[in-house]
Amino acid sequence: MQQGKFITLEGIDGAGKSTHLIWLEDFLRRKRINNVMTREPGGTPLGEQLRTLLLDQRQIMHAETEALMMFAARREHLDKVILPSLTRGDWVISDRFADASFAYQGGGRGVSFDKLQILEQWVQGSFQPDLTLYFDVPIETARQRVQSVKTADRFEQEQDEFFRRVREAYLQRAQQFPERIRLIDASRPLQDVTSALEGIIQETLFN
Amino acid sequence: MQQGKFITLEGIDGAGKSTHLIWLEDFLRRKRINNVMTREPGGTPLGEQLRTLLLDQRQIMHAETEALMMFAARREHLDKVILPSLTRGDWVISDRFADASFAYQGGGRGVSFDKLQILEQWVQGSFQPDLTLYFDVPIETARQRVQSVKTADRFEQEQDEFFRRVREAYLQRAQQFPERIRLIDASRPLQDVTSALEGIIQETLFN
Repeated sequence: MQQGKFITLEGIDGAGKSTHLIWLEDFLRRKRINNVMTREPGGTPLGEQLRTLLLDQRQIMHAETEALMMFAARREHLDKVILPSLTRGDWVISDRFADASFAYQGGGRGVSFDKLQILEQWVQGSFQPDLTLYFDVPIETARQRVQSVKTADRFEQEQDEFFRRVREAYLQRAQQFPERIRLIDASRPLQDVTSALEGIIQETLFN
Repeated sequence: MQQGKFITLEGIDGAGKSTHLIWLEDFLRRKRINNVMTREPGGTPLGEQLRTLLLDQRQIMHAETEALMMFAARREHLDKVILPSLTRGDWVISDRFADASFAYQGGGRGVSFDKLQILEQWVQGSFQPDLTLYFDVPIETARQRVQSVKTADRFEQEQDEFFRRVREAYLQRAQQFPERIRLIDASRPLQDVTSALEGIIQETLFN
């Protein structure tokens, strides 16, 4: 049924996802593959409204409320964007997906992985990305890169300890699903990261 | 731990919930019981923002997205209003709670009861209202009562067939939990309904 490929990019802010998204879009264009670039939370009109609530730094919410809202936006994203695009044969590239819920709501905020897994199953069934690129950087490196680019949102304003837990959860997730999640050391110079990225894409999706 | 009582009112629009809420608040005041009147979806600042998205008739969303958003608002409601109030010893009266998700998202929109039960367990664990008052009326009676009071929201604009399924699900739920959910025939004259209501409250909560 599904014909296109679903690729997700994961990592904390400052890992370089945005740069690599642009590279990836260009790479697929050169391969003449139709692709849809999207993001989470968001990607649909309702999802973007939920994103606004989720990122508003004045917003107060329980960690489990946050998790439910993330999966609500994801349910909509799957229904309106991801699944129809894949069925049509397009590739879908999403800036974050369910692994981010395990990293941020799980590792960062302390919602149990068991509870997150229940929501993941509830929303996705057995559906998973064909490939997840996890860009790993030490917190200090990420901090330096994003310094004062813009006003911090409700997640970005968190302390280093929060991001250390997020990173730990990402690493744990990558270890748990080594076939799907490819870890890329994103602390290296940009050119090296791009080479690694290209190697992985060629190897996993064009062989 | 929990000291106050948690009472929920359920029923389709036009069943007379609003009138009975006012009566109930007055009844508890005469009994010198501190109470908190609240509603779903809503009851918290974030919950009310989610309510706005949920009721906006221009909003497009998948039925499962709707269910997840309802339970997200409910998680927040429990954390910020319901549980703290009960712990403090106040009684909490909520205009709709989880049974409404089984009725509207389940019966009305077709989300499976099994999936709703997973969310109910996820959000509430074993927590349930001490008493649920379900005001039952035929769809036609309800329609007559609410006619042209205000602009219909995303739920109110649904057709009779939708509300018939909602009512069926409420009735099924009442049959499933006869101890907790008391069915009140709200098609009778107001005075009779109030008498029935008072009898149930006295019998279940003051004996």
